[in-house]
Formats: sequence, C-alpha cells, structure tokens
Amino acid sequence: IEPFDPASHPHRRFNPLTGEYVLVSPHRNNRPWQGQIEPPQQITLPHHDPKCYLCPGNERASGQNNDTYEHTMYEHTKIFPNDYASVLPPPGPAARATPHPLFVCEPVVGTCDVLIFHPRHDLTLARLSLTAITRIVDEWVGVYRRRGSQQSIKYIQIFENKGAMMGCSNPHPHGQIWALSHIPTIAATELTSLARYAANPGNHMEPSESPRGPFGRPCLLCDYIHFELGVAEDQGRIIVHNEHFVALVPWWAVWPFEILVLPYHRHIPSLAHLTHEEKLSLADVLSKVTKRYDNLFSCSFAYSMGVHQRPLPPSEEDIQNIDDEDNIAHLHFHFFPPLLRSASIRKFLVGFELMGEAQRDFTPELAAQRLRACSDVHYLDLVE
Amino acid sequence: IEPFDPASHPHRRFNPLTGEYVLVSPHRNNRPWQGQIEPPQQITLPHHDPKCYLCPGNERASGQNNDTYEHTMYEHTKIFPNDYASVLPPPGPAARATPHPLFVCEPVVGTCDVLIFHPRHDLTLARLSLTAITRIVDEWVGVYRRRGSQQSIKYIQIFENKGAMMGCSNPHPHGQIWALSHIPTIAATELTSLARYAANPGNHMEPSESPRGPFGRPCLLCDYIHFELGVAEDQGRIIVHNEHFVALVPWWAVWPFEILVLPYHRHIPSLAHLTHEEKLSLADVLSKVTKRYDNLFSCSFAYSMGVHQRPLPPSEEDIQNIDDEDNIAHLHFHFFPPLLRSASIRKFLVGFELMGEAQRDFTPELAAQRLRACSDVHYLDLVE
Ligand SMILES: O=P(O)(O)O[C@H]1O[C@H](CO)[C@@H](O)[C@H](O)[C@H]1O
Ligand SMILES: O=P(O)(O)O[C@H]1O[C@H](CO)[C@@H](O)[C@H](O)[C@H]1O
Repeated sequence: IEPFDPASHPHRRFNPLTGEYVLVSPHRNNRPWQGQIEPPQQITLPHHDPKCYLCPGNERASGQNNDTYEHTMYEHTKIFPNDYASVLPPPGPAARATPHPLFVCEPVVGTCDVLIFHPRHDLTLARLSLTAITRIVDEWVGVYRRRGSQQSIKYIQIFENKGAMMGCSNPHPHGQIWALSHIPTIAATELTSLARYAANPGNHMEPSESPRGPFGRPCLLCDYIHFELGVAEDQGRIIVHNEHFVALVPWWAVWPFEILVLPYHRHIPSLAHLTHEEKLSLADVLSKVTKRYDNLFSCSFAYSMGVHQRPLPPSEEDIQNIDDEDNIAHLHFHFFPPLLRSASIRKFLVGFELMGEAQRDFTPELAAQRLRACSDVHYLDLVE
Repeated sequence: IEPFDPASHPHRRFNPLTGEYVLVSPHRNNRPWQGQIEPPQQITLPHHDPKCYLCPGNERASGQNNDTYEHTMYEHTKIFPNDYASVLPPPGPAARATPHPLFVCEPVVGTCDVLIFHPRHDLTLARLSLTAITRIVDEWVGVYRRRGSQQSIKYIQIFENKGAMMGCSNPHPHGQIWALSHIPTIAATELTSLARYAANPGNHMEPSESPRGPFGRPCLLCDYIHFELGVAEDQGRIIVHNEHFVALVPWWAVWPFEILVLPYHRHIPSLAHLTHEEKLSLADVLSKVTKRYDNLFSCSFAYSMGVHQRPLPPSEEDIQNIDDEDNIAHLHFHFFPPLLRSASIRKFLVGFELMGEAQRDFTPELAAQRLRACSDVHYLDLVE
C-alpha cells in the first residue's frame, strides 16, 4: 500500500467553522461531461440599460423612480429597501404555542435592503476602481451600523449573488443586506465553533505567535490563517495577500474555486472595526479576487459572496474594547462560485451532496495554484 | 398587532432531523421573476438512443459494452460500477498525521455503482409499471446487502439525480449507490438527532400510541408521521398514503415541492427490513409521487432523491431483532426538486441560503395542497 497523498487519493476534510466534511476525489479530475452546458456569461453590457430597474433614473418594480445617484460619477452607490423583501419590519405578530415539539415555528421580523454598487450597468466589482470599491465597503459599514442598531434586530447578513447561474435576476452590479430578528443557522454554527475553539486552549497549537481574540483566547481563524501563511507559497492555498487581507482557497473548500477572504494582522470582529487603511486593503483584495475570477475562464464569473462577522455592530465606545464576548467573531468573506472546468461547465451540488456531504473533484491546492496563475489585470482591460 | 398566522407571516421552522432552520416568506409568493429561465424539460425521448451509454447493447464511457439486460422486457434493471467513481475500492493508503488540528484529513475508500432502472431510454419512475418499480426496490435491497457487507464499508448512500437541472448528465433513468468507509455528514447528523430524541422521553408527546423504535424508545419519525396523520386532511401536509407508506411535504421543507416518503405502520430501520407487501407499497407510493411531480407543471420534473436508513444492513439472523442500537434509523426517502413556479422557473438556493439559512417563498402546506390536487395518472398516459 502506497503512503497516503491528498493530491491523488480520495479523502475527506473537515470544515472547523461548520462541522461538516467535504469528500475530495482528486483522481476524478478528467471525467467527461455530457450534462448541462451553461449559456455564455454576457460580457458586453451597455453603460446604461433603459429597461434595468436599478439603472439611474429608471422605474423600479414598485413603480418608484430611481434618482440619478450620480453626485460623484463612478464613485456613487445607492441603497434602498427591497421591493420584495423576504421579511417584514417590526413589530410582527406574537408567537403562538407549538402543537408538538417537532413543529417549532418562530415569527421573524426584519428588513431587506438592496445596495447598487455603481450607476454603471456594466461595472462589476472586477471592473470597478479601488475608490469605487472602497465606497461600497463604506456603505456596508454604514448599513451594518444603521440596521444593526434597530429594535428587534439580532443579525445583519450582507451578501451578493452574481450571475444568472447563481439566481441573480439583474446583471446591474448590486448586493443585498438582510437584517433579521434571529441569527441564521450557518452564522450561528460558525459562532459556536469559534467559541468552542476559544474555550479549549489545547486547540491552540504552534505557531503560538498568531493574534488572539477577546480575553487573549485563541481564535480559530487567526490560528488558521497564521498556519496557512507559514506554508511554502507555491504549495499552499493562498492566492494573494496585501497589507492587511489575505485571499485563499480554504483547506475545506467545497465549491471548485471557493475563496475565503480575511484580515490576518489582528483579530478584527466586524466591518465596523476596520481602520481606514484596512478598508483600502479590503477593497484591494476584493478587486484582486474578482479580477482573477473573471480571468480564470475569460468570462463574468458567477458567485455568491457573503460576509460573516459580529452579529451586531459595537457601540462607538465599545469599539476599542476587544474583550467582549461578541468579539469572538472574526470578519471574513466567503466566495462560492459554481464554475468547474470552463465558462460553460459548472459543478452541481446535488444528489450525494444533498443526502450525504459535499464532494469535489480536484484539490483546493490545485484550485489555488490556478487562481495564483491568473493576472491581477482584468482581461477586458488588457491593451493589445 | 394581529395574531401570528404561519400562512401569511414570515417565520422560521426547525428541521429536527438536521438541526437547521428554514426561513419561510409566505407573503412573497408573487414577486416577478426576471432571472434565469430553464430550458424545456425534454419529454419525448426515443425508446432506445444509439448514443446513450446506458441503453442496452451500447458502448460505455470505459469502452465496455452493455449487454442487452432485457431478459424480461419492461421489468429488468442493470447494475455496474461507475466508470468515474468518486472513491476507490479498499484497501486504500493509511492515514498520515495532521499538521495542525485545523487540518483534519481522512482517507476514504468505497465503491460507486450505477443502477439503470429499465432498458427503455424514456421511462422514468413516473412512467414505469409497479412491477418495474418493485424490481428497482429489489435491486436496492440487494446492493445495500451486498455492498454493505464488504470490508471497510460503513455506509450505503442510494440516490437518484433526475434532470439536467439537477446535474444529471444522461436522461436514461438511473440512480447511484455509493458505499463508503465513513458515515457522511448529513446522514450522521440525522442519526444523532434520532438518537437524541429517543434518549429524551420528554420528547414523546401525545399521541402516545405511535410506533416505537428499538428498546421501546420513542422514534422521532414515528412520532412525527403519527402527528401528521392526525391533522385534518385538507389542512395538513400529506399528499398521498397507501397501506404502508405516506408521502408528505415536511413541516420544515426547504425546496418548493420537497417530499418526504416513509413507512408509518411500524418502525422500519432499512430497506432490508421490508416485507414483500411493504415493498409493493413503497413502489406504489414512489409511482404516485413521481406522477404527481410530472403532472404539476406537465414536464419531466427534475429532482434529487435519496434514501436514509440504517447505515449497514442487518445480518439475516438480526433482522427480526428490533432491539439493536443501529435500528434507531427510520427508513425514509427525501425528494428535493428545484422547480418553483413553472417548468421553466426554479428556486435558487444561493446567497442568503449559502451564508445564513434556507429560505422559501410559500408554505409547505400550500405545496402539499397543490400536489394533492394533481392526478395519479401521468399526463402523457391520458387518453383524449
Ligand atoms: O455522478 P454523476 O451523475 O456524473 O454526477 C452528478 O452526481 C454527483 C453525485 O450527486 C455530483 O457530485 C455531480 O456534481 C453531479 O453532476
Ligand atoms: O432576492 P433576489 O435577488 O430576488 O433572489 C435571489 O436571492 C435570494 C437570496 O439569496 C434567494 O432566496 C433567491 O432564490 C434568489 O433568486
């Protein structure tokens, strides 16, 4: 029997954030595909589309008119409540008794906002200037603070669905912000995992010089990223890093080119804790990640992206106080993109994945290697 | 404030099998859809396709030739190892030490089989005779026993991906059987939930006359289905039931028309425990469920279907002994179909669902009502 090699032998890896495993089948890389072919991801869009309900001056689904929101052209964003919100604002109706313990049902209240990234219909994160992306980061901080200080709200989920393949119904670059009266399942699971890790000093292995969370306790993500930064560059999972942020394909990645983005110099619980320099660094890493994604298969790369952080923002006076239980959270961004082999062949998380556990066909290390090899210059911006 | 009404107010429901919640937004039923439109689900296929690698007599991806497997035409199935298996047979390489507790990696061995449901290229479960479906049930029992008694194997996952939308690369009706050296995440979570429920007698509410699991302890699914059967027929979630099996949209359904199929007369841990009558009853309920699915939007309805049961089959002598810890499992089938509003508009579980928790736009009760209203006669078999 040959020695085990994760680059070629089937194995499963553990995701310490969610407690779930992923089955990795590295030997299965080249199986033929006779299944569904995705339509080309449209790359040439007009600057302004008169039929788009997000473009400046146009009419929205609700019948309301967008203003021009172009005070500072190329740098302006717009935020408004979703015309078809999945939750309704407080106060909601009171809960009623459950007829049987197997029928748990809790009322939910909250708000859903839409954040338009830019007036231009065609400029995704991958095409926007750093100044424009920084403006989006500022909007995220603002909405996190605003919605997070409203009554009944317990969690703010910021995310973006990009591309028709990921259920996005409008190519005009935009994201969403859902403020909810409960902490959703996955965010709650991650917070529990971070708390469990912090409570167990035995978990804190070398290198022990990694940053620490509240009360000087070990942080799962500080330790994880510290270890990743120590792996030889060409063998590891890191794609790119700048002064404050790093982007990598996590050890436990499920989606073929899944990426985790997080700060690595210090334990940062939320967007509200970012310094000005850190915000610029975040904008820079988001730009680099999305450019590499588009360059990988020369298309507008679809994904779902989301922010996990402290459930609610700290008060102004609490922001300096790291020793707060809620600061167990370590700010990070997940990118879950479906494409597998080309702009038209995606991975389906179905069947075994829905009944058993996630499965992937090549290693995260190989995915990282391919994303590292991509340019930071967007292929559409290349001058011949 | 009006009293809470789950038929119209946003709320979340708890799935006691997985420990996850689903956010239900009943008020959001009629939002317009400008996103991706699915291609028509092909309904007229030839009886035999010379290019299909599953049709009798044709060549497979591996270069091997299928035999005719038509000993008893319309009643024969065929089973063979997948040419592109996601795992490799034992013995596999030995595990190696983990460099850090955050980098857990376990070798996996096993086998992947393909089960062709029928020689006919065009006959899905919804179109097959009860005799033909019973033959498939017999094959499942056989492969569960065979693969489940092999060395190193700890779990058998039986499933079917149907339709291009669900990642199926060949419309010739077939399913898969993965035998693995570990219990996959979701199956393990369900088993833990069943064990926790059984260990807590406080959980066992009225009606107390529901069947019980091993050692006379309460079974989560026996109790659940017993309660469901007591709800007034037109207000509940049950779609259809026959002598031994019931099909319903579970209280915690995530997919728009998700269905759970399970036996309700007695606690049945696995396919191997089924009597001949129960197998016929299972074939009948699978036929009725898939016919109603096709009739809902008059198309070949896509889904992922999977069996959860006792991880490994009991020995011949153990089959009569219900008092065995492994018999905590209660045999059930999950159907996860993506279609939402028509044959061309699907639900996307993206963004909020991937970062927070599952979300649905109309209630499971409404879904059940619509599936109840569908005929048991397949729309293609209707004589004008
Ligand atoms: O095994 P198949 O049919 O080639 O592949 C299909 O089912 C597998 C198991 O559910 C999934 O992992 C694949 O993504 C899907 O395309
Ligand atoms: O809110 P949208 O963009 O209309 O809808 C999209 O995102 C939602 C949140 O991720 C999902 O629940 C929907 O299935 C998806 O189509």
